[in-house]
Amino acid sequence: MGRVTERRRVIRIRDGVVSTRPDTLVAEEPMEIRLGGKPLAITMRTPGDDFALAAGFLVSEGVLASADELAHIVYCAGASGGDAGSGGGANTYNVVDVRLAAGVPVPDITLERNVYTTSSCGLCGKASLDAVRTRTRWPLDTGPDTPVRLAPATLAALPDRLRAAQRVFERTGALHAAALFTADGELLDIREDVGRHNAVDKIIGRALQEGRLPLSSSVLMVSGRASFELAQKAVMAGIPVLAAVSAPSSLAVDLAAETGLTLIGFLRGSSMNVYAGEHRLAVPGAAG
Amino acid sequence: MGRVTERRRVIRIRDGVVSTRPDTLVAEEPMEIRLGGKPLAITMRTPGDDFALAAGFLVSEGVLASADELAHIVYCAGASGGDAGSGGGANTYNVVDVRLAAGVPVPDITLERNVYTTSSCGLCGKASLDAVRTRTRWPLDTGPDTPVRLAPATLAALPDRLRAAQRVFERTGALHAAALFTADGELLDIREDVGRHNAVDKIIGRALQEGRLPLSSSVLMVSGRASFELAQKAVMAGIPVLAAVSAPSSLAVDLAAETGLTLIGFLRGSSMNVYAGEHRLAVPGAAG
Repeated sequence: MGRVTERRRVIRIRDGVVSTRPDTLVAEEPMEIRLGGKPLAITMRTPGDDFALAAGFLVSEGVLASADELAHIVYCAGASGGDAGSGGGANTYNVVDVRLAAGVPVPDITLERNVYTTSSCGLCGKASLDAVRTRTRWPLDTGPDTPVRLAPATLAALPDRLRAAQRVFERTGALHAAALFTADGELLDIREDVGRHNAVDKIIGRALQEGRLPLSSSVLMVSGRASFELAQKAVMAGIPVLAAVSAPSSLAVDLAAETGLTLIGFLRGSSMNVYAGEHRLAVPGAAG
Repeated sequence: MGRVTERRRVIRIRDGVVSTRPDTLVAEEPMEIRLGGKPLAITMRTPGDDFALAAGFLVSEGVLASADELAHIVYCAGASGGDAGSGGGANTYNVVDVRLAAGVPVPDITLERNVYTTSSCGLCGKASLDAVRTRTRWPLDTGPDTPVRLAPATLAALPDRLRAAQRVFERTGALHAAALFTADGELLDIREDVGRHNAVDKIIGRALQEGRLPLSSSVLMVSGRASFELAQKAVMAGIPVLAAVSAPSSLAVDLAAETGLTLIGFLRGSSMNVYAGEHRLAVPGAAG
């Protein structure tokens, strides 16, 4: 609970000079997500916002799409010492159980596959794209009359704002960050985690809990690279714009092109690459 | 097969100037690993070295520890179009099946949990550490008379060698790399992948296939951060030293301390932090 950082002794070597001092590290712990009492997935995450992480994971997997579909989320007694399934052992705050509201269907496939972050995959990239496009309950607009228009100058300001808002990174250098901005560049939320996908799930989960899905006028900004998985999460939450500091993968670009997601990479200073969804860019020559 | 990069059209914006050009992206595709015909895990990976990836994954999970335990690895007919389980559909080269040699036990727990990269987790960090320590078949030495001694100057040279050997990163900026070095800093192997854990699995899997496990006199170097998962993979392959360009997590440090792994972070130029296993460092004052 709230163990975002931990202290450890470290030996520093600087140009041959050896010294010992305490160092601040980012905390990493496994978390099991259960759905109606049944184990669904395990993720290595930075503790904190665990309920949001579980809720956001279920949005990404297509199980949840609005707050009224969620009954409640609780911590279970943990797996330390004794039978995990029976709820024995001390509470490690590393197992959360999500109960869906009455009438909300539990998809069999997710439970059967039991594979974190990739349960929508059909085992070839094309099938994965199809699965996300057909499963999202918040389809993105793809036409030229999109309600979200972004100025490059607004996008260019996001990386500095993301970095300024990162609290733990400065101390540990070990955290990925994800932030949600308005189309005008105002910061709405930011999360840090050892896993980039967890940071995004925490943002989306909190939005679900607060009844703010779909996030249809927001920009999701991530540190590092843009993978298929992150593009998938944006699409499942109805987020129309994903911006990354570094490069996207081929499958992330393909998914963006198929679903209408605006995908921006190498967003650094006033430079950026637009890989898909340029109809939302207020740039002469970019549309169409 | 060998689709390490793909070409896509990109709109570049540089200081307000908009241009369109082709861009090289890193390829990303899902891969399903089956064990004796049964689905075990799915990972998003950069195609290439798929059999090594599957073999290395099974080393990390404690299923394989030497080449003679592996019978063969084959591509299955893919899941595109029709029933995946029946082997129908075209071969997408995204499903590999691993057959173990006669008499090699298939651990039930891995199949039951069916969770990629975290099946050794006992759901609290401590249980995870215990699981790795007890399951590795190549325990690391922990005493002062270790056979592997590293000079800081040797370590300091590794990041440049890693970068120099990265082939695809230069073109796409999107790949993680892992490299294996001798204790004298000679490059033995390097792999790149959208997932850092895949790059490590590919290195370990190739070593298994060539009968080089345990890698007991090697140094594993990774781009980016050192997570619990990467430390786990090093320990399971008998690698005594893990060095990362960026920070480790708390659980990675704990695992290293418990198992005798030398864990080095922030390896940049002549600077580095030693988080555990300092008995292998040839530095006055670092040992003991």
